[in-house]
Amino acid sequence: MREFSLAIVGATGLVGKEMLNLLEERDFPLSRLRLFASERSTGLALPFRGKELKVERLEKGCFRGIELALFSAGAQVSLKYAPQAQSDGAIVVDNSAAFRMEPQVPLVIPEINSGDLADQRGLVANPNCSTIQMLLALYPLYLAAGVERVFVSTYQSVSGTGQDAWEELTRQSRDLLRGRKPHPSVYPHQIGFNLIPQIGDFDRKGYSMEEIKFAQETQKILHDPRIRVYATTVRVPVFRGHSEAVSLQTRKRLTASQAKELLSQAPGVKLSEGEDYPLPLDCVGRDEVLVGRVREGGEGENILQLWVVADNLRKGAALNAVQITELLKDEL
Amino acid sequence: MREFSLAIVGATGLVGKEMLNLLEERDFPLSRLRLFASERSTGLALPFRGKELKVERLEKGCFRGIELALFSAGAQVSLKYAPQAQSDGAIVVDNSAAFRMEPQVPLVIPEINSGDLADQRGLVANPNCSTIQMLLALYPLYLAAGVERVFVSTYQSVSGTGQDAWEELTRQSRDLLRGRKPHPSVYPHQIGFNLIPQIGDFDRKGYSMEEIKFAQETQKILHDPRIRVYATTVRVPVFRGHSEAVSLQTRKRLTASQAKELLSQAPGVKLSEGEDYPLPLDCVGRDEVLVGRVREGGEGENILQLWVVADNLRKGAALNAVQITELLKDEL
Repeated sequence: MREFSLAIVGATGLVGKEMLNLLEERDFPLSRLRLFASERSTGLALPFRGKELKVERLEKGCFRGIELALFSAGAQVSLKYAPQAQSDGAIVVDNSAAFRMEPQVPLVIPEINSGDLADQRGLVANPNCSTIQMLLALYPLYLAAGVERVFVSTYQSVSGTGQDAWEELTRQSRDLLRGRKPHPSVYPHQIGFNLIPQIGDFDRKGYSMEEIKFAQETQKILHDPRIRVYATTVRVPVFRGHSEAVSLQTRKRLTASQAKELLSQAPGVKLSEGEDYPLPLDCVGRDEVLVGRVREGGEGENILQLWVVADNLRKGAALNAVQITELLKDEL
Repeated sequence: MREFSLAIVGATGLVGKEMLNLLEERDFPLSRLRLFASERSTGLALPFRGKELKVERLEKGCFRGIELALFSAGAQVSLKYAPQAQSDGAIVVDNSAAFRMEPQVPLVIPEINSGDLADQRGLVANPNCSTIQMLLALYPLYLAAGVERVFVSTYQSVSGTGQDAWEELTRQSRDLLRGRKPHPSVYPHQIGFNLIPQIGDFDRKGYSMEEIKFAQETQKILHDPRIRVYATTVRVPVFRGHSEAVSLQTRKRLTASQAKELLSQAPGVKLSEGEDYPLPLDCVGRDEVLVGRVREGGEGENILQLWVVADNLRKGAALNAVQITELLKDEL
């Protein structure tokens, strides 16, 4: 079997480590795996398939000989090094927001628009975590009934921000339980036992970058400029797993039981029914997007409501990127 | 000045204690104040205006001589003792869900429908916490533009459940930070660093009681059976203060700046603008409903979005009940 040389940029981050786990779990055929990270992590070693892999520094020419490069080290690193990886001959799968809305860059959720990979020119973007999980749940309903508007409120865990935020939630929670004043540093406000209804900067209309991504990425992935997504994105004091309360206005009426039938067969989706519903706790380390609390509006109202939970580090980031990489390798 | 004899039923609960605070803060003219609670609290004493008030047991005839009785001890206690208080001659202001949807019982938010108090027959219901805060923010927009549909997702703190839930969140958070397995008892699932998308039992269509209250109470308070409220209600690991992501489909288009102008003048509402937005932390002990993140949909879309935060123990419960009581006393 053909094997591939692969690099992970941002290997020591929460998503990078999950990429390593997934390559191991899914037996990705590797001739070589190189790990890159920022200065402060170089020299570290990470376990992979029973060995220790050294973490290297990004530098000129470092991608020579690499066929596939997974980036998850933030937009600044991607902007600087993704073009270099491409010119060194690698195909880049980028988990940052740097290139997602570039018209010539496919933005792909494999279960939905893997066909867009045919147009790749050496760079494919991985959508935002919260977009991926919502669209996996929405897609079968969209195909069956059309969707005019989506109203989505998110409950996003701190692991979406990274290791520092994980530690900040731990530290602040401990301090607060001991009656001590917490000291925000990663987030602009206290996150322990609190909520922060801002993820990313605001535009002049008051929408946060995370909310704008929801709308723009959905239109791009579905190739549907008419669909409207009204998001409110909120950081909550949960470590791992993003949750979303989603309400859809469909073009045709779809009952809750029709929706459940469709969701029960949708790839990548696990449906909970009856009194059962998914929790952030349930999704950790799982590949599927968990959907529950499916309900319909009254007579004459084309409304469906869902509760959608997924591991933001897996399907929301590392897994989707690895799935894209698996499809790309088959074309090499 | 005329003074009134008043009773609080459920005086040792989180809402009951807040009622005591408010009567003191607002200088309610009292000839007598009696405190009632369940068996396990009788004999306790609570501080009020520099004295200690004994907590008494509910029993036959205990409301004789009481003019106004505030109930906040759960629906079962209200069902049993509110009729008794009425037949003993008191007017009851009930914070439970027991009588809210009875056609002859006014359901009142003073800033919105104090006129409904004219029809009271000895019992007035206090709306649900999450309904109160949403409607205070929605009302000025509703008057100006009409509202067809509301999509609301809640982020509700554990103090809405009571003292036991507050302790459960504390205990579970501590256990989890020490690597110990938490033991749910008040809630059906872990609440520490987790979310529970269920508040109250489900109906056969999968809506929770909390979600149904939102829809029904809104229609009743606004006297508008056409308005549709699609809620998803979620318990979050926050101690105090409920938050809501609210999206409105208005009948006429209202811009965000028009909405902000209206909200800045609305009674009981405090508007945050620009980069500023309210957090659960900010609302604790405050009377106002805090509104921020006001934004509008694109051209041709009659959509407004808001972020609404309030102290669920104050305006969401005790304050609204005390405000109703203040209006009722003026008619005695």
